[in-house]
Amino acid sequence: MSRSPGIVVAIDIGTSAVKAGVFTADGRRLGYGTAPAPSLRPRPGWSEQPAMRIWQATAGACRQALAEAGSPKIEAVAVTGARGSFALADRDGTLLTEFITWQDRRALGQAAAAAALADAGWLQRITGVRMDASLWLPRLLWLIEHRRDLVAAAGCIVTPQAFVIGRLGAGHWPAEWSAAAYSGLFDIADHRWHEGLVDTFSVPSGLLPATLPPGAEAGRTSPAAGIETALPPRVPIVLAAADGPCAELGCGVVEPGRLICYLGTALSVAGPVERRIEDPSGNLITAPGSTRSLYRVLALGMAGASVLDWYGKLVGRPVLDRLDALMEGSVPGAGGARFIPALAGSGAPHWSAEARGAFLDLGVGHTEADLVRALLEGVAFECFWMIETLRPFGFDPAGLRVTGGGSRSNAWTQLIADIAGTEVVVPDETDPGLRGAAAYALVHAGSHPDVLSAAKAIAGSGSSRVPSPAATETLRAGADYYRDVRRAFARSGLDSDIAHVPLPAGAYSLGL
Amino acid sequence: MSRSPGIVVAIDIGTSAVKAGVFTADGRRLGYGTAPAPSLRPRPGWSEQPAMRIWQATAGACRQALAEAGSPKIEAVAVTGARGSFALADRDGTLLTEFITWQDRRALGQAAAAAALADAGWLQRITGVRMDASLWLPRLLWLIEHRRDLVAAAGCIVTPQAFVIGRLGAGHWPAEWSAAAYSGLFDIADHRWHEGLVDTFSVPSGLLPATLPPGAEAGRTSPAAGIETALPPRVPIVLAAADGPCAELGCGVVEPGRLICYLGTALSVAGPVERRIEDPSGNLITAPGSTRSLYRVLALGMAGASVLDWYGKLVGRPVLDRLDALMEGSVPGAGGARFIPALAGSGAPHWSAEARGAFLDLGVGHTEADLVRALLEGVAFECFWMIETLRPFGFDPAGLRVTGGGSRSNAWTQLIADIAGTEVVVPDETDPGLRGAAAYALVHAGSHPDVLSAAKAIAGSGSSRVPSPAATETLRAGADYYRDVRRAFARSGLDSDIAHVPLPAGAYSLGL
Repeated sequence: MSRSPGIVVAIDIGTSAVKAGVFTADGRRLGYGTAPAPSLRPRPGWSEQPAMRIWQATAGACRQALAEAGSPKIEAVAVTGARGSFALADRDGTLLTEFITWQDRRALGQAAAAAALADAGWLQRITGVRMDASLWLPRLLWLIEHRRDLVAAAGCIVTPQAFVIGRLGAGHWPAEWSAAAYSGLFDIADHRWHEGLVDTFSVPSGLLPATLPPGAEAGRTSPAAGIETALPPRVPIVLAAADGPCAELGCGVVEPGRLICYLGTALSVAGPVERRIEDPSGNLITAPGSTRSLYRVLALGMAGASVLDWYGKLVGRPVLDRLDALMEGSVPGAGGARFIPALAGSGAPHWSAEARGAFLDLGVGHTEADLVRALLEGVAFECFWMIETLRPFGFDPAGLRVTGGGSRSNAWTQLIADIAGTEVVVPDETDPGLRGAAAYALVHAGSHPDVLSAAKAIAGSGSSRVPSPAATETLRAGADYYRDVRRAFARSGLDSDIAHVPLPAGAYSLGL
Repeated sequence: MSRSPGIVVAIDIGTSAVKAGVFTADGRRLGYGTAPAPSLRPRPGWSEQPAMRIWQATAGACRQALAEAGSPKIEAVAVTGARGSFALADRDGTLLTEFITWQDRRALGQAAAAAALADAGWLQRITGVRMDASLWLPRLLWLIEHRRDLVAAAGCIVTPQAFVIGRLGAGHWPAEWSAAAYSGLFDIADHRWHEGLVDTFSVPSGLLPATLPPGAEAGRTSPAAGIETALPPRVPIVLAAADGPCAELGCGVVEPGRLICYLGTALSVAGPVERRIEDPSGNLITAPGSTRSLYRVLALGMAGASVLDWYGKLVGRPVLDRLDALMEGSVPGAGGARFIPALAGSGAPHWSAEARGAFLDLGVGHTEADLVRALLEGVAFECFWMIETLRPFGFDPAGLRVTGGGSRSNAWTQLIADIAGTEVVVPDETDPGLRGAAAYALVHAGSHPDVLSAAKAIAGSGSSRVPSPAATETLRAGADYYRDVRRAFARSGLDSDIAHVPLPAGAYSLGL
């Protein structure tokens, strides 16, 4: 392990808060800060994050982290953030809109039109993503249709990451590859905007920002930014990859074929690969990965840890503080009760915007404990299905990292180990994206030769969950049944019944 | 309307209580009494009703009703009761077992074996019923297999109705036709035990009781019984039909083609017909009706008003006292949430012992009000499906009578009117079976020429629910979807997943 004295700052711009951390080259976190930057719902289905809240939260989180660390000498600052958000800026760099986040649903119609206009297979082979309202493209088309004035005045599309590095002193707004790839217009083989797609959708090509690979230096901090953030001037500003690849790095998932399960509002299972994969089903997402040469393959579900919050609201009594007792009140298999967590559609392995959640096989003897266990098992079954879908592409579930808010439940992570039938690890780090971003800064500071080595050195420890063979046997039968049900629903067209019911404001949505 | 002064007593032996009423020839109820006679669960899945509790409850209910009526002169006493229960008696009439009720599930294996042994279509053409553990036959086979000693000592099978009339003074234990028909051995065309079936299943034919048509006099009350019941001696004891046909009569459903919906623990839609029907699907039950010449056609669901109790227990908060508020918190269609009430299997129109309940199409914005409305709508959809299944056989839903515990919810009965798209009537009488039994006694007393006239004269009034065309339109779409789901589940084999999970003690079961 390197013992270089380099100390760096990492910043992670989420859609509800900004986090900052001060890290040493051997992975100690000397300071931490966070400040809220909430996304607002100006209209039902819309989701916008005010730019000034992002900047103020960034400055506040940095000041807090640096103060806690004792204001050490900082060698580099790296910035990561959620994919899918963007704003329009004019030719002078002044923002014309707030950030429209991936949770925004205004462009459902434009997404459907875009999917109809371009051959879906062709688009996905180029961009690695499925057409969806959470990508930039449908919202750009919406803006062209509804706010032609703003589009005419605009000079550039700006990501939250680019906005923050610009304010830190970089003075320009480049998009990192994995962020650019969530546009629906980025050629992930050549790492540039795809002219054919830009032409097909008549996107004003001048709007598209310059793109840079992960780890690139975008500029240096300015004295002006230093007053607000407490960062010293002339510190190199490093573009980290998006929060997904950074979370991978922060959990030590660096070797191709390893997997991370993110049990957050949404559910995803993802991992690095050396080459693009060709998924004949089109349900998996491929994106630029944590280095210039790696890709990242992603199976995405629409409801993860959020199912507990959803259920608690539904019955008017929270379940989180009763979770352990409820789990002990039922047994693996939940007495036959089943839950399908597709509350806001489903992603891989069976992509369906129309899918909805279900409790199935309810009998007269079931208890709330069975229902709640069914909730956790349903998400775990979905997770296992994702793992099994990824496995033929060279992924190995052994040592799967499970992180995100849901990983705080021992029962839940044990369930995932039991279903996967293999040891899984729950990292101690609760903000793996922030730690992963630090790896980029440490490489820039010369503390590690490359970002994968840096990630390995700083990933930290975790606790292990060893599967119980008896539970595995019971749960595998449940997992098979789960798949059968999902497929039967898709065959029967039952997925699409309430596609016409609009999602209410505050709904969880598609996206990473 | 007849103005004969005849005053009669009616007794209804249920599986949890006995009720008694004193009625005048014009339908006034002069007195009412009830006493508990609970069914016990000596082992998981078993259901037995102690004979002495039945007799004590009968005596108590009679005393209470007669006292309330002021001990008028009684011209006749009629007895009805739940179908499916029976006990073994020795050759002297001493009971060798308690009453094993229709809710008893011990003979699931014998029911399957019996279904395999006799051609199901042949058996159903003769008996009118589907082979099921709630019939006598499988439990008889169970007793032959496990309690050969008792069967060897037995002289007769006794119904609760026969037991009570025997104790009242009749001195023998005849089975009324509609009770006998729930054996699986009764030829409903010829109204006698079917020799071929008795032979096929090697049932000791000496065990089968004598059968009598509805309205037959079985004997006279004894002075000894009078001491316990307060009934005078020498009063004619009349065999009413079983509780189902009696409930029809008590609601005034006397003309062939009219329908009654019983919204109790189970859900049924039934009505009188002049000829046996041939249901090619085999899902409808045909049974002897309220007169010697009428039949009764029955569509049976396994969960009715009990779904509310089930849901309240499931989430740990009763819903009955919040029902109106919850129903107002949602709209027709329940925001897209759907419920399948097959918590303990399903009967007509899609018979499946393996079917289970489900909540479907759950989205992130749903509330408990949507879930509870979905519960009521699911049962109403099932009810509508039953009506539509019965309609080709000459039944008309106009003026459908809705009774049973669930009919106390105005919202629920309105839902049924809305879905059916026709006026329905909720009778004021909350114990229609008791009132229907009184009709038989009144005919015997000479107050009315026949039981249908008597029923018309005494059925009493009710309140009307007029459908809202807008609600009908929304709900019909839901009803179509409901059918599609049920059919899709059956096609997919999803019905049968948890057939191996044993029902817990206290489970609702098949039966009337």
